Amino acid sequence: MIKEITSRILNPDEFIENQIREISNTVGDGVAINALSGGVDSSVVTALGHRAIGNRLKTFFIENGLMREHEPEQVRSMFEDIGISVEIIDAREDFFKALRGIDDPEEKREAVTQTFYKKVFGKLVRESGAKYLMQGTILTDVDETVAGIKRQHNVFEQLGIDPEQAFGYRIIEPLIQLRKDGVRLIGKALGLPESVFKRIPFPGPALAARIIGEVTPQRVEIVRNATAIVEEFLKDTGAFQYMAILHKDRVTGIREGNRDFGLQIEVRCWDSVDARKATPTRIGFDILEKLGSAIVNQVPGVVSVTYHIATKPPSTMEVV
Amino acid sequence: MIKEITSRILNPDEFIENQIREISNTVGDGVAINALSGGVDSSVVTALGHRAIGNRLKTFFIENGLMREHEPEQVRSMFEDIGISVEIIDAREDFFKALRGIDDPEEKREAVTQTFYKKVFGKLVRESGAKYLMQGTILTDVDETVAGIKRQHNVFEQLGIDPEQAFGYRIIEPLIQLRKDGVRLIGKALGLPESVFKRIPFPGPALAARIIGEVTPQRVEIVRNATAIVEEFLKDTGAFQYMAILHKDRVTGIREGNRDFGLQIEVRCWDSVDARKATPTRIGFDILEKLGSAIVNQVPGVVSVTYHIATKPPSTMEVV
Repeated sequence: MIKEITSRILNPDEFIENQIREISNTVGDGVAINALSGGVDSSVVTALGHRAIGNRLKTFFIENGLMREHEPEQVRSMFEDIGISVEIIDAREDFFKALRGIDDPEEKREAVTQTFYKKVFGKLVRESGAKYLMQGTILTDVDETVAGIKRQHNVFEQLGIDPEQAFGYRIIEPLIQLRKDGVRLIGKALGLPESVFKRIPFPGPALAARIIGEVTPQRVEIVRNATAIVEEFLKDTGAFQYMAILHKDRVTGIREGNRDFGLQIEVRCWDSVDARKATPTRIGFDILEKLGSAIVNQVPGVVSVTYHIATKPPSTMEVV
Repeated sequence: MIKEITSRILNPDEFIENQIREISNTVGDGVAINALSGGVDSSVVTALGHRAIGNRLKTFFIENGLMREHEPEQVRSMFEDIGISVEIIDAREDFFKALRGIDDPEEKREAVTQTFYKKVFGKLVRESGAKYLMQGTILTDVDETVAGIKRQHNVFEQLGIDPEQAFGYRIIEPLIQLRKDGVRLIGKALGLPESVFKRIPFPGPALAARIIGEVTPQRVEIVRNATAIVEEFLKDTGAFQYMAILHKDRVTGIREGNRDFGLQIEVRCWDSVDARKATPTRIGFDILEKLGSAIVNQVPGVVSVTYHIATKPPSTMEVV
């Protein structure tokens, strides 16, 4: 049983100090490795780890082909600005090959996990000689994985899987007692830029979690376009998270007087404190209408746009 | 080319007088038959026809298993109140058999059309000895059928199909020069109750047009439940049309802490004058949230609800 540290009782400086000490003690004079996605969890882990063991933490950004527009370059340059160097690994082919033909959400997450750990990251770890893997697992990931709602890519011990035996390295999860709001406080206390510690959550399987049905480069490109539009329109809402989802269902539409059997994009925008419960953000129809028009006009093939209006539960934040 | 009569230039009394004369001249002392769905178009045709030729117009309500809650009985009793008798024909088995295994929207509409005309209604016509079939085709149906957007069930001549040769009867379409707003004016002038002439549009293929993927009795029941909730919540919006749509895509949800891979209902509510163009109705989030909760709580299996926010075009009013 993991002991939760709520954001109300969290003392950020003390927490950081404790974690730095613990990481240093664990790794000793060894080498650790971590994968940075640019999300708040992995960014905070990256900053914590570098505080603790400096350049003996090797930080990689895995370009899996599932990230948002310009994301790999933006993340690297942001960390360069605070003196942390990040290496980008192009693994797009591996991921798309693993995802080919997969429709089921759980199998999809599993394909991303397995490709990440066994193929791409496992190879990096072996080559680096690192025996320690740092990860941004938070308590909500553990809850949802244990409940069987979602298979998070970074919760092995809770499932009775020994990562050392299964993958050859020991996992360090400094944020596992926190929820998202606590992680943001730590990010702020570490001096990360606001764009990082206030960054909206983005899932482990990245845009693959925003696609119903098969994940192909073409379908990722569609949801990537829609995501850029949604993020631009909704960035000032103050919402917890917002996203575009590509449906598999096709719907009837009409273009220049002719029938167009096209695609549907679903927009979700959530108000939430810690992702355990969430309600749809009350966005004005001025914005919703412009958003709908922008998506149908700028994303080829899309004829229909919806806005999610149910709460979590029984919905989840992501669709996959 | 059909000459449009816009609602602006329409003189309802004169139009009714002309149509009654024309119907009488066409049918002579013969017998005509029509199918009443309870929608404004077929209701106006039923009232017009009975004014013209009285009981020599035989009016049937085809219970295809695709209608809304209590609809067959409500329509019959409404027309009984104004002295018109309507016979209900139970053809549920025929329709579900024809729809089995069909996913494609056009094939679905075609299956409903063929079952209606060739099987169910064709039999009624033969048994009745009627040589005339009255239908509520309006100009928007013709436009959309000619454009290939949708195959309406009642537009044969425009497609170069001779219904006498194909189906054995002549079709009378008294409303073909009008659009929906004009038809409502005629309904009012005919003395139909407001619940009829202001009734929101409902498609020919009924709830089959509100289901993405296969139409089964179980899936119709789901969308029927959701439709009853949507109509109750949105009846006071003054909107042109509102509906619930059952998606085929399944989405991840969470129920009592456990993963629930469930269904999604899409709600559409349209502001429109004549159905050619339409914008989403600006419904307050107080209502949208309650509507979302009601659907996930009352319709078994549903974990997600969305509200449509794109315009027509490029969306269409219905999804199938």
